Amino acid sequence: MFYHIKELQYNAKPERPDPVYAKKLQEILGGQFGEISVMMQYLFQGWNCRADQKYRDMILDIGTEEIAHVEMLATMIAQLLDNAPIEEQEQAAKDPVIGAVMGGMNPQHAIVGGLGAKPDDSVGYPWTARYTIASGNLLADFRANLNAESQGRLQAVRLYEITDDPGVRDMLSFLIARDTMHQNQWLAAIHELEEREGPVVPSTFNTEYEKQEVSYSFMDFSKGNESKKGRWASGPSFDGKGEFEYISDPEAMGQIPILKPAPLYVHGTIPSDMPPPPSAH
Amino acid sequence: MFYHIKELQYNAKPERPDPVYAKKLQEILGGQFGEISVMMQYLFQGWNCRADQKYRDMILDIGTEEIAHVEMLATMIAQLLDNAPIEEQEQAAKDPVIGAVMGGMNPQHAIVGGLGAKPDDSVGYPWTARYTIASGNLLADFRANLNAESQGRLQAVRLYEITDDPGVRDMLSFLIARDTMHQNQWLAAIHELEEREGPVVPSTFNTEYEKQEVSYSFMDFSKGNESKKGRWASGPSFDGKGEFEYISDPEAMGQIPILKPAPLYVHGTIPSDMPPPPSAH
Amino acid sequence: MFYHIKELQYNAKPERPDPVYAKKLQEILGGQFGEISVMMQYLFQGWNCRADQKYRDMILDIGTEEIAHVEMLATMIAQLLDNAPIEEQEQAAKDPVIGAVMGGMNPQHAIVGGLGAKPDDSVGYPWTARYTIASGNLLADFRANLNAESQGRLQAVRLYEITDDPGVRDMLSFLIARDTMHQNQWLAAIHELEEREGPVVPSTFNTEYEKQEVSYSFMDFSKGNESKKGRWASGPSFDGKGEFEYISDPEAMGQIPILKPAPLYVHGTIPSDMPPPPSAH
Amino acid sequence: MFYHIKELQYNAKPERPDPVYAKKLQEILGGQFGEISVMMQYLFQGWNCRADQKYRDMILDIGTEEIAHVEMLATMIAQLLDNAPIEEQEQAAKDPVIGAVMGGMNPQHAIVGGLGAKPDDSVGYPWTARYTIASGNLLADFRANLNAESQGRLQAVRLYEITDDPGVRDMLSFLIARDTMHQNQWLAAIHELEEREGPVVPSTFNTEYEKQEVSYSFMDFSKGNESKKGRWASGPSFDGKGEFEYISDPEAMGQIPILKPAPLYVHGTIPSDMPPPPSAH
Amino acid sequence: MFYHIKELQYNAKPERPDPVYAKKLQEILGGQFGEISVMMQYLFQGWNCRADQKYRDMILDIGTEEIAHVEMLATMIAQLLDNAPIEEQEQAAKDPVIGAVMGGMNPQHAIVGGLGAKPDDSVGYPWTARYTIASGNLLADFRANLNAESQGRLQAVRLYEITDDPGVRDMLSFLIARDTMHQNQWLAAIHELEEREGPVVPSTFNTEYEKQEVSYSFMDFSKGNESKKGRWASGPSFDGKGEFEYISDPEAMGQIPILKPAPLYVHGTIPSDMPPPPSAH
Amino acid sequence: MFYHIKELQYNAKPERPDPVYAKKLQEILGGQFGEISVMMQYLFQGWNCRADQKYRDMILDIGTEEIAHVEMLATMIAQLLDNAPIEEQEQAAKDPVIGAVMGGMNPQHAIVGGLGAKPDDSVGYPWTARYTIASGNLLADFRANLNAESQGRLQAVRLYEITDDPGVRDMLSFLIARDTMHQNQWLAAIHELEEREGPVVPSTFNTEYEKQEVSYSFMDFSKGNESKKGRWASGPSFDGKGEFEYISDPEAMGQIPILKPAPLYVHGTIPSDMPPPPSAH
Repeated sequence: MFYHIKELQYNAKPERPDPVYAKKLQEILGGQFGEISVMMQYLFQGWNCRADQKYRDMILDIGTEEIAHVEMLATMIAQLLDNAPIEEQEQAAKDPVIGAVMGGMNPQHAIVGGLGAKPDDSVGYPWTARYTIASGNLLADFRANLNAESQGRLQAVRLYEITDDPGVRDMLSFLIARDTMHQNQWLAAIHELEEREGPVVPSTFNTEYEKQEVSYSFMDFSKGNESKKGRWASGPSFDGKGEFEYISDPEAMGQIPILKPAPLYVHGTIPSDMPPPPSAH
Repeated sequence: MFYHIKELQYNAKPERPDPVYAKKLQEILGGQFGEISVMMQYLFQGWNCRADQKYRDMILDIGTEEIAHVEMLATMIAQLLDNAPIEEQEQAAKDPVIGAVMGGMNPQHAIVGGLGAKPDDSVGYPWTARYTIASGNLLADFRANLNAESQGRLQAVRLYEITDDPGVRDMLSFLIARDTMHQNQWLAAIHELEEREGPVVPSTFNTEYEKQEVSYSFMDFSKGNESKKGRWASGPSFDGKGEFEYISDPEAMGQIPILKPAPLYVHGTIPSDMPPPPSAH
Repeated sequence: MFYHIKELQYNAKPERPDPVYAKKLQEILGGQFGEISVMMQYLFQGWNCRADQKYRDMILDIGTEEIAHVEMLATMIAQLLDNAPIEEQEQAAKDPVIGAVMGGMNPQHAIVGGLGAKPDDSVGYPWTARYTIASGNLLADFRANLNAESQGRLQAVRLYEITDDPGVRDMLSFLIARDTMHQNQWLAAIHELEEREGPVVPSTFNTEYEKQEVSYSFMDFSKGNESKKGRWASGPSFDGKGEFEYISDPEAMGQIPILKPAPLYVHGTIPSDMPPPPSAH
Repeated sequence: MFYHIKELQYNAKPERPDPVYAKKLQEILGGQFGEISVMMQYLFQGWNCRADQKYRDMILDIGTEEIAHVEMLATMIAQLLDNAPIEEQEQAAKDPVIGAVMGGMNPQHAIVGGLGAKPDDSVGYPWTARYTIASGNLLADFRANLNAESQGRLQAVRLYEITDDPGVRDMLSFLIARDTMHQNQWLAAIHELEEREGPVVPSTFNTEYEKQEVSYSFMDFSKGNESKKGRWASGPSFDGKGEFEYISDPEAMGQIPILKPAPLYVHGTIPSDMPPPPSAH
Repeated sequence: MFYHIKELQYNAKPERPDPVYAKKLQEILGGQFGEISVMMQYLFQGWNCRADQKYRDMILDIGTEEIAHVEMLATMIAQLLDNAPIEEQEQAAKDPVIGAVMGGMNPQHAIVGGLGAKPDDSVGYPWTARYTIASGNLLADFRANLNAESQGRLQAVRLYEITDDPGVRDMLSFLIARDTMHQNQWLAAIHELEEREGPVVPSTFNTEYEKQEVSYSFMDFSKGNESKKGRWASGPSFDGKGEFEYISDPEAMGQIPILKPAPLYVHGTIPSDMPPPPSAH
Repeated sequence: MFYHIKELQYNAKPERPDPVYAKKLQEILGGQFGEISVMMQYLFQGWNCRADQKYRDMILDIGTEEIAHVEMLATMIAQLLDNAPIEEQEQAAKDPVIGAVMGGMNPQHAIVGGLGAKPDDSVGYPWTARYTIASGNLLADFRANLNAESQGRLQAVRLYEITDDPGVRDMLSFLIARDTMHQNQWLAAIHELEEREGPVVPSTFNTEYEKQEVSYSFMDFSKGNESKKGRWASGPSFDGKGEFEYISDPEAMGQIPILKPAPLYVHGTIPSDMPPPPSAH
């Protein structure tokens, strides 16, 4: 169960409205790696957690914090939209600055949302639950989380670069710092799990059942071999169980596929060496 | 530019048709972490790569391999659908085994695809490009890739468990082995980049501009403190620049948000302490 | 079955082309509360109607009218796109007015639609059938309809505000008036059904089976109690069967959830107090 | 900002696992009118609220409660999936009960979620932010909310009918009761606003600018006139400003649309009375 | 403007309910090539038509007919759902026939739609406006229409095969016959346009501006040359302007792409031969 | 299986960056008729092909070529984004040219993609697998392919018109030429199949089972009869089996639909001539 307090976790006060920037800032609210994504991802990972309670508790703590980040961004965007100019076109066309603002805004901010934030990304695409990753395997999921915090911090930094509003930058400096913590946090949790399970997910599959002769081979499917210069092409594998090998000309190991003709009731194309069908009925 | 050869990378021959399993196997073809996702993700990361050529080449090598995996899975699914029973309901209802098959199939496999594979997941949801991650920052993206190979191997292993067809298992044993390699490969590439850049993405943002007092604090937003027991709650941070601290009762640091009334031309609700508007025009 | 006549229900003639406005006007054509939504919603409610014929007939009458509204908007948008400038960038950049137009247009209007309307909203997001509400319970659905006409009239009014083209305003004045009627109409139909069934949907569920002690409690899940000042916090409930009560500190009434570990064949994370699994096969 | 406590708002304990029902129950978790929808809808309406603080506070109180409902449903679904049978097909086919379960499950519950709830609906379609309604006009939005609670209670009641598990029914009896309250609550809030503003949304548009001669006309666009029998066809309108009138044979009031030929650079079809174009360049 | 009459264009009366088939029949109602798609496609092509009135009129005639087909299918599906069994699971599990029905139904037909049709396809995926094709070039669009009627008739035939309900088959026999007409109709319209314009769309682009040396070359991008055996590999081209040629070993004609490093403010990966950046700010 | 070579199939080198055009060019990369669509469509048609090997081989040859077209477009877009201005708003507002660029860009090109191409269309909508058409009936599918190449060439031509960058035009001249070939190719393949099967898809359905009296009737569902002037309204049908007939006043041939009331457990609206239900339990 949850409780709300009215104060924001951190300040979200722009110095001045900026509806074009409001559109861009939507990316870290409702984009693939926005705050709604991490909020939903952590909450669902926590609620579905079948492992130790310390993981469940930790995941839900951070999931609860992310709701507060969604709140901060929504609040910021609403203020960036204060008094956005949406008046007559003709006049706008005369003033290129207003024209640029009106062309660059997300029209739904005015028409649909009445100058409020939307759970969408910076091109207006709605947040979708397909962004949420929760597999029941924590090592897999913590890698998803580390990625989310990496992409998220990268986007926040890019948004920091393209504004000079001190209020917006102040809020972003907080979110960026939290992303620093959260990257560190998932690195720590991954470290703990890898110590116990090893680095290959899932650790519980009997590797005798996998085709082990290709478990450590880098296959070079192109002309040229620049790809040979990396750590992935030679030396011991990172799970400590094999040695990387570089295969310059990988050969096909499988059959040439020939599919059977479809049964008549499917009405596909009939191979030319078969008689045309009698009427189907 | 690409060339095709007719042989599959590895065998994809089921022992017998199984249209219900065909539906499930769609998950690792067209699901969020299916082969289409990694194919598109690696190809776009490679084509957009602005870093060293060895990365570009490596990423495109593996992206090219993934096209072959899509091909294997599509071929397998088409064969699992051979002669799928789609005939009259009445008869089906008499035989519960046929009934279960017909109820458990993806109806589009017959009606839309004519017994062919589809670029969809196991509930019939179409693959979407929002699954593709390519940010231009390779450390962030390699984490996305490590996650994709972890989730993908996990799903392949689960699909291995729920079939006993030796042909299907043979193909899966190959894909699982390649996922082992690919997890190792991304671990190696991540290691290389972290050595140069450190573990926090992006490394190029001046940390003085982030709110450093919260960069290493674990905030406990719930009652109870099981979350204190992990490595993330104390000790040096994983970027080597701080010390984790555990905050039991995190305080709000921000304002109580009060938004301005909307301008009249937006026709939102007017606060009760304002006069009702004169006619808008 | 349907017949078409060539005349529009009402005029749709702009005074001059305005491709940027054409993009915005798409909202009430193909947006969540655009004319396609009410057209489809009413038609499906009517076709699925299992209640009195007068409802079926009424719903289909208005559904049929909405097809004509879609037609008017499509016609208007095509004319707003007449001769839209899509020529070379270089020249455009020299003239900020043209630049604003080209930046503010929906590029698909030219590239995909050849200067025709699209069944999309104002950010180019395609209309989706998930907007359609038809539950088989008319009181529920008429509330959906009242909401749709409220949101729709609000958006049409906002679009009226941001144009000064007399032809566009003339058409909008007609659509706004029809929305006035349609709000009144659904209010009347709701009134009729509430008289018979009461205001709680569905009326046919035996309320003894609901947890009646929380059926009229407002729960204050935040610090502060501004929320106590409304009609919803005290006085008789609107179904006439209870009394509103305000609960300042709602207590949890449920368990602390502890989920069972997953079976081994799911390959989730294994709790640390369980032995690591033997190989799965 | 938000805090979490570990106890659920109300019990969510099934008597026994039932993975087929788990799939169906997803509807009120991640469907159009599921708990995620009302959670997001209320939170965004609250965060964007520019009206009186009592509304903001009230909306956020209920939004915060809805997070707890999402939590209850996710917890319930995870338990309904405990030990779901996903083993070999062959064996399943022999036991029609297991076969029905395996055919009727959502395959992603096992393959993707590792026996956890997903933010999707009962056909596996992911929750989308396009379900979220927040317009800045509270009367419009409270109608959306009343509809959401009506559709939501209707679906919960239907789900109550199709299970006989006492634990599931106990949880649903709580959610149904809360929906009773929430319908009453929105009715109260709507009543308050309608008293001030009247029933037509938005109230702030000068009705002189709408085409008033069609503001109260019911138009009969079909043969037959069953639709004349309702309250919407005669008597005073519900906004008290007009009289309903029934128009049996509504006439077209608009032009026959004739669009101009497209400019040559659009490469549309050229009317046959125009010369074929010279080469475009 | 449109009028409705109460009679269906053709009978839609099943002999008995069949909720599993109802789910499948949704494909030709709300699928990619279902009746909603052709209805919307033809209406939008007609409304956007800038060519001769005879085309506009013809397209809208058929578009209007398609609304009636949507109506027939919705009516049929509602009847197939009459009294669908949705009762307690336990009992269902005892009777495998009921179990198969309940597992094979679309759960939203009961929970969401109250036994009504939905604007979705056979896997429950909602109809999306991205299925609608209307480019302003009638030859292109008539090819889209011919394809839609071909795919649509194919699906209707497949659905005919998998039912033995005489009422359903009667309705399908009508829809299949109309699809026969509509294929013939689009073939006729295409013939007319090709006579005037030639077969390559768009005809108005000056072919001197295309890279004519590759305008008639079949490129064999695989080992083996079965693809040489078709009409597309030799002989005069179908536009009468060239000769097909078969290129066995197509060579790359383009550059090896090398992208510039990203500017620092984008925070991508920095090439290893560049110095690490000074702090960005 | 596939191999990659580093050279592009043809040059993709813009003369100068142009981020606004980059957004537009996305249409033929990730739009409905972009190169990703034909790539996926041809590959899936080939992999699922159950007809003669010459078709399979031909389809896969062209599918493999399309991967190279995706590569060319991605490469071009990345270069058009080189050094895109994303700096502070204030400065931008002063220079209308920069303002137009910043307003007209796709913000995700900078924030999400780090100046890389995305698998999305020109309004930022992600590519979806629902664009992929593969039915198992090659005549149907080749018509889909002919349409795709027609729409695709049309869009490429429109994009050619709106740039004057010689490098972009050079690349487009190649893609347009290949679309010329591909239209010719599908025309040839269609011709071959129609010779064998006739023009109505599917050819294998016994036409006695269709309602033959409406198989060649053009039905005029509107007032006015401009639609009578086309080849589709009279003369022999294109399948050579009938004669077109023009029906000016098509009559309804079906029932007036009356649906049964829903069972009580569905909680729909109860017809007014039925008693209100006793409590459901």
